Amino acid sequence: MTATATSIPERPDGRTVDALRPVKITPGFVPTASGSALIEAGGTRVICTASVENDVPRWRRGTGEGWVTAEYGMLPASTSERRTRDVSRGKLDGRSQEIQRLIGRSLRAVVDMAALGERTVWLDCDVLTADAGTRCASICGAYVALQLAMRDLVASGELEASPVSQGVAAVSVAIIDGVPRLDPCYLEDVAADADVNIVMTADDNLIEVQATAERVAFSRDTMNALLEVAQAGIAQLREVQEAALA
Amino acid sequence: MTATATSIPERPDGRTVDALRPVKITPGFVPTASGSALIEAGGTRVICTASVENDVPRWRRGTGEGWVTAEYGMLPASTSERRTRDVSRGKLDGRSQEIQRLIGRSLRAVVDMAALGERTVWLDCDVLTADAGTRCASICGAYVALQLAMRDLVASGELEASPVSQGVAAVSVAIIDGVPRLDPCYLEDVAADADVNIVMTADDNLIEVQATAERVAFSRDTMNALLEVAQAGIAQLREVQEAALA
Amino acid sequence: MTATATSIPERPDGRTVDALRPVKITPGFVPTASGSALIEAGGTRVICTASVENDVPRWRRGTGEGWVTAEYGMLPASTSERRTRDVSRGKLDGRSQEIQRLIGRSLRAVVDMAALGERTVWLDCDVLTADAGTRCASICGAYVALQLAMRDLVASGELEASPVSQGVAAVSVAIIDGVPRLDPCYLEDVAADADVNIVMTADDNLIEVQATAERVAFSRDTMNALLEVAQAGIAQLREVQEAALA
Amino acid sequence: MTATATSIPERPDGRTVDALRPVKITPGFVPTASGSALIEAGGTRVICTASVENDVPRWRRGTGEGWVTAEYGMLPASTSERRTRDVSRGKLDGRSQEIQRLIGRSLRAVVDMAALGERTVWLDCDVLTADAGTRCASICGAYVALQLAMRDLVASGELEASPVSQGVAAVSVAIIDGVPRLDPCYLEDVAADADVNIVMTADDNLIEVQATAERVAFSRDTMNALLEVAQAGIAQLREVQEAALA
Amino acid sequence: MTATATSIPERPDGRTVDALRPVKITPGFVPTASGSALIEAGGTRVICTASVENDVPRWRRGTGEGWVTAEYGMLPASTSERRTRDVSRGKLDGRSQEIQRLIGRSLRAVVDMAALGERTVWLDCDVLTADAGTRCASICGAYVALQLAMRDLVASGELEASPVSQGVAAVSVAIIDGVPRLDPCYLEDVAADADVNIVMTADDNLIEVQATAERVAFSRDTMNALLEVAQAGIAQLREVQEAALA
Amino acid sequence: MTATATSIPERPDGRTVDALRPVKITPGFVPTASGSALIEAGGTRVICTASVENDVPRWRRGTGEGWVTAEYGMLPASTSERRTRDVSRGKLDGRSQEIQRLIGRSLRAVVDMAALGERTVWLDCDVLTADAGTRCASICGAYVALQLAMRDLVASGELEASPVSQGVAAVSVAIIDGVPRLDPCYLEDVAADADVNIVMTADDNLIEVQATAERVAFSRDTMNALLEVAQAGIAQLREVQEAALA
Repeated sequence: MTATATSIPERPDGRTVDALRPVKITPGFVPTASGSALIEAGGTRVICTASVENDVPRWRRGTGEGWVTAEYGMLPASTSERRTRDVSRGKLDGRSQEIQRLIGRSLRAVVDMAALGERTVWLDCDVLTADAGTRCASICGAYVALQLAMRDLVASGELEASPVSQGVAAVSVAIIDGVPRLDPCYLEDVAADADVNIVMTADDNLIEVQATAERVAFSRDTMNALLEVAQAGIAQLREVQEAALA
Repeated sequence: MTATATSIPERPDGRTVDALRPVKITPGFVPTASGSALIEAGGTRVICTASVENDVPRWRRGTGEGWVTAEYGMLPASTSERRTRDVSRGKLDGRSQEIQRLIGRSLRAVVDMAALGERTVWLDCDVLTADAGTRCASICGAYVALQLAMRDLVASGELEASPVSQGVAAVSVAIIDGVPRLDPCYLEDVAADADVNIVMTADDNLIEVQATAERVAFSRDTMNALLEVAQAGIAQLREVQEAALA
Repeated sequence: MTATATSIPERPDGRTVDALRPVKITPGFVPTASGSALIEAGGTRVICTASVENDVPRWRRGTGEGWVTAEYGMLPASTSERRTRDVSRGKLDGRSQEIQRLIGRSLRAVVDMAALGERTVWLDCDVLTADAGTRCASICGAYVALQLAMRDLVASGELEASPVSQGVAAVSVAIIDGVPRLDPCYLEDVAADADVNIVMTADDNLIEVQATAERVAFSRDTMNALLEVAQAGIAQLREVQEAALA
Repeated sequence: MTATATSIPERPDGRTVDALRPVKITPGFVPTASGSALIEAGGTRVICTASVENDVPRWRRGTGEGWVTAEYGMLPASTSERRTRDVSRGKLDGRSQEIQRLIGRSLRAVVDMAALGERTVWLDCDVLTADAGTRCASICGAYVALQLAMRDLVASGELEASPVSQGVAAVSVAIIDGVPRLDPCYLEDVAADADVNIVMTADDNLIEVQATAERVAFSRDTMNALLEVAQAGIAQLREVQEAALA
Repeated sequence: MTATATSIPERPDGRTVDALRPVKITPGFVPTASGSALIEAGGTRVICTASVENDVPRWRRGTGEGWVTAEYGMLPASTSERRTRDVSRGKLDGRSQEIQRLIGRSLRAVVDMAALGERTVWLDCDVLTADAGTRCASICGAYVALQLAMRDLVASGELEASPVSQGVAAVSVAIIDGVPRLDPCYLEDVAADADVNIVMTADDNLIEVQATAERVAFSRDTMNALLEVAQAGIAQLREVQEAALA
Repeated sequence: MTATATSIPERPDGRTVDALRPVKITPGFVPTASGSALIEAGGTRVICTASVENDVPRWRRGTGEGWVTAEYGMLPASTSERRTRDVSRGKLDGRSQEIQRLIGRSLRAVVDMAALGERTVWLDCDVLTADAGTRCASICGAYVALQLAMRDLVASGELEASPVSQGVAAVSVAIIDGVPRLDPCYLEDVAADADVNIVMTADDNLIEVQATAERVAFSRDTMNALLEVAQAGIAQLREVQEAALA
């Protein structure tokens, strides 16, 4: 596709710089939830569920509008060195808070809150195994869980139509030696000069751009190049999502 | 087997009072952990992992002995009504604390701490879906995860032999109208007059007996009857564990 | 009484294996409480109070039924090595939580909640000095405090009759070298292979059986033997309770 | 004594304005502690203990000096309306913190920290029943517990002599309608225009003066009058302390 | 003025023992607040704000009366060695709690709560730089902020007149070698034998006296001498307050 | 400059879409800190301090490298409706955590950690008044405080040269009706379809891009346009920073 692909750096798993890892979405993985999906992207696996509550936060009551919120967690053994449980530390760490705020914002951007009515949808994303890209995988999987939960409300007659206006997916990019690499694995993630997460809608608009230089500041040209490669990756992820929902 | 079986009360899923639900153990479910297993018992599914840390709690250092500890959690969507995350409430609730203390004690009872050496084994049991019996399923699954982690240490030459002295399994019993029912499902659990959890070793000795009258106190005869039915159930669970480890 | 008594191991205080420590209950020890008792069992002393609140937990409101709950604490100097206050650690430890849940369950088993009406009885058990057996002493003392508080409600005309259906008492047993010893003191407690707590009603039925192997799993025969010795001990404790209430 | 006595307001319990409530100190009330005392002042009863630890806070290590610190708590049923436990609220309330800081400061003022050596003395004051004046009773009782613990160290040969330089006692005063009343009971406490706590040494010097107008600011003349009445009360309390230590 | 001035100890900044440090009050320092002031006393600078909320604490609702409460904080760099934020330690330390309780009590003493109506005034005192005397500076500055907020309510027609009955100011005194020194700076504060904080009304009555011997107990004569010097200092502070409000 | 300027939407304060609010930086605002600055950008004012500690976090010790970290807070009265203190809620909210992580990352990107040596620089940003853009103002002010603290280390001979490699500044952009507006005030902030924060180095490279659609997803063309306007704004902010440091 772009110039970045032609520089052909070697990736740990032999992919080209613009290739995703194998992605698989298993809908209905958690039968106790209204909607659910297990998403697997390379070595990263995330359990995503959508639970519907017939109430909204206090500040939302009486507005006729609903709310969508997300929570993110990692199972202790999801990383090769065991991770202390959040509850044992007494509070959620800053990184997890950022991630769950991002997931919530990304999904809210495609939900018509008036059409949802005074309901809250809780999106829970729990990482089973982590090999980088857990926040983007969470967004992709949460979208499927959300859609399934909305179908459930339509099937039971509680809603006439799904309040989800269009699809949404996310992908991460690592900049290494000035070259964007799509969907980095853990080895690339820790070696990256900059970490990028892009969330886009089905109609190719941006919901969120988070680009962070960890070591080396990057140029506006590099910014453009990575958006190019991200957009193509998101289009592929959208296909996997729709296949899981078919 | 005993008189209790002959009274033949109707169970929601048609089982006899001394029958277990279908049990399945999938070893190696979480590849990032030293040892792991997914255990499914009817509608109850628990992810069990064993992580080995080359350190012991402060009070144990310098003794040459190891430690085994357990943590228990429930995914928010594991129950049909979404459960608030432990970290959101800021602390572990009393029930979860009791359960994780029970799991830890039960597994410690079959580990030779001197043979383990100054290592800590963390047993994490996270409930994916809950349909009663999660604590007993956790003990059964944690045993498999623990054994796999010990094999890993033997394979890598860190230990000469597994420090696990013998098998351990657990099963719950509900007393309803004076009759013990083995391995109750959720509907039976909430209707029970008394809840019982029994942990036994492979050589048919008791590690833990927890019998709690929720509504109606029970006689010593009933106590004997339920131990009978539990012992038979545990023998079957032991077979499933060993098959998973084969 | 049984075979266990004939094996006659030596106890630190010269008791036979089926003998209780001296027990004394002082009713009305805390005049600010509706009901109260100081219970002394050997070196163990626990302050028990019952406070009545004219409200119930939120989930109980409108049901016409009451609630009984217990809280357990230890004074910092109750153990020979000073114990850090619970509030200084910010949360109740797992052991205390288990104990207060046990006390609450045990007393709730003998209270008719509809007869109590929409009131909450708070049972507070605070250990003044600890020499093993504090949870069982708490249950015995809390029963006296509860009965006195109920008498108070009857005397003031708020209740027609006490909603307590029958007596309840508890005793612990230690298994050492396969022999059950009734009501162990601290020295026996730390040396025990298994710890057991038995709660029984006045009519000799079981409310709670908690038997935990700390070191050596025990047989079903031992289980029977310890229930025998516990039942006899509980009968004696019931007499002391009733004398205090007379 | 002074003009304040001649105005002769009526007190709920018939005392003159310069009279203490009956005071009683029972030494050795908590045998598990190094030193202990139960102090009773009217309806107020406080359990005071002194525990010696062979360590000092980190900032004190290596200085050769010791430390004395206090903790204060109230049993839930110590007030007629049950008080929520500190640990249930997750933190110590401001009032309790103020009180325990006051107790610690007051006792530190009479301890030679170099003579104590690198030891910490924990003074625990737990209110059994509260009828006003708990902080002053705590100081008086903690002094007795501290002295007993120091005697214990001298008896065991760990210290050559007690590091306590002189006696200390405390009393509260209420100002009602401009007249100071010594050692108010609860009814006077809640009606007071100003609350005062005075801590003095055996040689009649001031360690702490805390005078707080709750409703009506007070004049410097009133300040002088209340110091007069407090000094006389403290002299009597000192006698009760010394009798308990004799 | 008094005998204490004639002993003329040398002060670090050359002041006489009865002299205040230079004081400056800048009203309206925080335009987003209803009332505000920056108070500077020597090297001590405190930002004081008064925020009015149209609600009262739950226990006050329906009484027709208002409430005044204070909160105190220190910016991390306010001391030469950086101070950990309160939120990082998870709770307010005992010293800060004592200070904010003192500020609240002092200001409540001059507010007519019925005239205020069911409103809460929050007084926030945040220390920008600390060179001793922050609690007294906070009280002086909070008074100005409070008065400005009340003027705002009068100007908007919400109140007919200010509910503040009279002025209030506070000053600290250090006792060094038996001599009281007015308004000590940090060097004197750490060297003091006793720390004293005096709060007085415009009509020369006492609201609060807090005198604490840190090292050496002090006589009643010293107590009188320090009240003398404090009263004169407070009169000067009152002039600066009124000038800022003019 | 660009097409966005020619569409000329009306701004609340009459600025063109590519104009900053008036900016002012007062260096040395907090004399107790190693480096400090008060930054004012329109109605937003932030106190920024840099404190140097001769230690590093545990995981950094022995590496010879330093660390730079940031903490962010808002004074309670910084917003027109009073904001509850972080410590009163017991933990930092998610938004504040995100902001302080951003400030820390942004400044770390321009510090040579080996040249800094094993020191930690704490950057504290406390908002005095908030009118949007507090996180970008914090980064701009923290840079000045950091440089002043480094000069201090050079002046005292602790460092040979400043370890700061180049300048850094940040600005926010709001997208309203598809048009980027530089440095929005509060009224524009709440009305924005998307919020953007851009951090750039003195040599025009990107350190961080955070673009978040609150209501309407935005195109890649809009993304380019807003980077254009941000880059120009940052150049102006850099001039104000350097003037303050001159």
